[in-house]
Amino acid sequence: MTTQIHETQQIHETHQAHQAHQIEPTAVPGTVPGAVPAKDRILTGDRPTGPLHLGHYFGTLQNRVRLQNEGMDLFLVIPDYQVLTDRDVADRLAEHVEGLVLDYLAAGVDPSRATIFTHSAIPALNQLLLPFLSLVSVAELGRNPTVKDEIAHSRQAAVSGLMFTYPAHQAADILFCKANLVPVGKDQEPHLELTRTIARRFNERYGPVFPEPRTLLSEAPLLLGTDGTKMSKSRGNSLAIRASSDETARLIRGAKTDAVRRISYDPEGRPEVSNLVLLTALCQGRSPYEVAAEVGDAGAAGLKAAATEAVNAHFAPLRARRAEYAQDLSYVRELLREGNARAGEVADRTLAEVRDAMGMRR
Amino acid sequence: MTTQIHETQQIHETHQAHQAHQIEPTAVPGTVPGAVPAKDRILTGDRPTGPLHLGHYFGTLQNRVRLQNEGMDLFLVIPDYQVLTDRDVADRLAEHVEGLVLDYLAAGVDPSRATIFTHSAIPALNQLLLPFLSLVSVAELGRNPTVKDEIAHSRQAAVSGLMFTYPAHQAADILFCKANLVPVGKDQEPHLELTRTIARRFNERYGPVFPEPRTLLSEAPLLLGTDGTKMSKSRGNSLAIRASSDETARLIRGAKTDAVRRISYDPEGRPEVSNLVLLTALCQGRSPYEVAAEVGDAGAAGLKAAATEAVNAHFAPLRARRAEYAQDLSYVRELLREGNARAGEVADRTLAEVRDAMGMRR
Repeated sequence: MTTQIHETQQIHETHQAHQAHQIEPTAVPGTVPGAVPAKDRILTGDRPTGPLHLGHYFGTLQNRVRLQNEGMDLFLVIPDYQVLTDRDVADRLAEHVEGLVLDYLAAGVDPSRATIFTHSAIPALNQLLLPFLSLVSVAELGRNPTVKDEIAHSRQAAVSGLMFTYPAHQAADILFCKANLVPVGKDQEPHLELTRTIARRFNERYGPVFPEPRTLLSEAPLLLGTDGTKMSKSRGNSLAIRASSDETARLIRGAKTDAVRRISYDPEGRPEVSNLVLLTALCQGRSPYEVAAEVGDAGAAGLKAAATEAVNAHFAPLRARRAEYAQDLSYVRELLREGNARAGEVADRTLAEVRDAMGMRR
Repeated sequence: MTTQIHETQQIHETHQAHQAHQIEPTAVPGTVPGAVPAKDRILTGDRPTGPLHLGHYFGTLQNRVRLQNEGMDLFLVIPDYQVLTDRDVADRLAEHVEGLVLDYLAAGVDPSRATIFTHSAIPALNQLLLPFLSLVSVAELGRNPTVKDEIAHSRQAAVSGLMFTYPAHQAADILFCKANLVPVGKDQEPHLELTRTIARRFNERYGPVFPEPRTLLSEAPLLLGTDGTKMSKSRGNSLAIRASSDETARLIRGAKTDAVRRISYDPEGRPEVSNLVLLTALCQGRSPYEVAAEVGDAGAAGLKAAATEAVNAHFAPLRARRAEYAQDLSYVRELLREGNARAGEVADRTLAEVRDAMGMRR
């Protein structure tokens, strides 16, 4: 999903997010109460560029499932249309999309409650781009942090029109289903600002249609890759949710550590070791300090053994569920068809309201 | 229609356009021959902001009808969705759209051959925006002459994202139906350049889908308004196609002239008088010099009488046809429904090809 174009964003989101939401349940100024769905609706998603890893899982996926199970209406967008410009991804797109759905199901997303859909199947969504683009200035688009990041990180010489208009696409993704909550990391909060601006300006100009979505803030601990840098599909340092037990063992065995035998939890001073401690703690639902104390003088080898065991134990039921679903991809495809139909109905309803508000004949 | 966002553009297009097309029938370099429809397809249209006037008629409408009658496949887009941001227009949008269709029918557009459709009814069209935006840089968007003009002419302090991305919208409008010919005035030719760039880049990157549309160049004589400045709906100096005979007489009576009794055709030296001469000549299919000589010493009053008679004579059958159609707006609405269905099918076919080319599951 476009709000999570950077992997850090997914990693930053946590189980504390919902708590943050509970702390400030009142609407932000300017929110149109009547336009907020009766039930909280969350919009989030992941770019279909490869398997989700444990950073995604502990950073966001686990939390989404929790929110779903607490009764929130979860919309998961797979922004397939936006990644088509990456040829390497596009060539395996169907596989990536299906893999993503399997990862969701493995993690506990319940398709009878959550709505999983692909962006490309909802043309009504892109109909929102015209009014939305009319409500923001070129200067505002250029100031958006996501666009700035994209510009900074892009290896392309020139910034594309698609990248530049990203905030309008993001707004369409979020507002088409009137999501009122969007999970983001703290540093990503400004990214949502332009979506709120667009919603507010639309409502002021044409009448109340959209909620001004609030962020579900989180302060997730940052899970690093096996090389001690940011966990990322593209760096080859990530542990996929769907990895086998053997693969997990192999990857953790190869993880970078340091020469100090006694294991401690010190993310600043010993990032690589602390990361394995954190991973073990997250899998076991314990404090990383407790885990470090337990491993104690067993050194890197002992830590790696503990981490491998913890990961494999925690993910065994998820991986079993995933393998079961993976046996019948026609079920996955049917789920997507259903999700697309549901999202399509929602989009059509919203678009009809937009057209009415804008004085447009139906 | 977005390629004709400026009225000058419509005025510049003429009956000579087709001739220009015949002069250079070979494809421009880079055109993908296989992607060009067997029959020439023209995409043009008008913004639904009010009644079409005689500048539109002699500048473009007459020519479109001629091209239609010569067997070309005419697609007329009414960009309703793009004008929604103008509240004054939006409030009377249905009326404006129906009025435009009536003007087309009056001028001789044959709905059994031409396809008249509203932009908002073709969601597949906006699906092209994402790949198209990915194929142009921000710098290229900013360099586009239409965007520059819009920026220069805009009374808004800030340029909107909609205005800035105009070239991508234009490309979608033209390419969705694989139009290979777009009527433009000479000064507007560079405006189409980015559409051709987008078509070329798409074809190079994903495989041949789009023709690189050529411009139907024209050097239409510029018809001025009754005050001697550019004829424009918004200046209140225009003669609507649908005006009554009395209204025509009244408007021409009020037209600006000069103090020289002897009538001559000298557009540089005597713009107002020459404009009435030109109008008379266009209505009668004669040379303006011949008309001027005939009026001779009859002065401004004589010229105005001649112009009024010529306009009313030429437009009498068109106005009668218009009045007849206007009696039953349900027919107009049915035409739009049919045109929208036809354009929708074309758009869906193109989008399917785009998705196949981009390696997208259907």
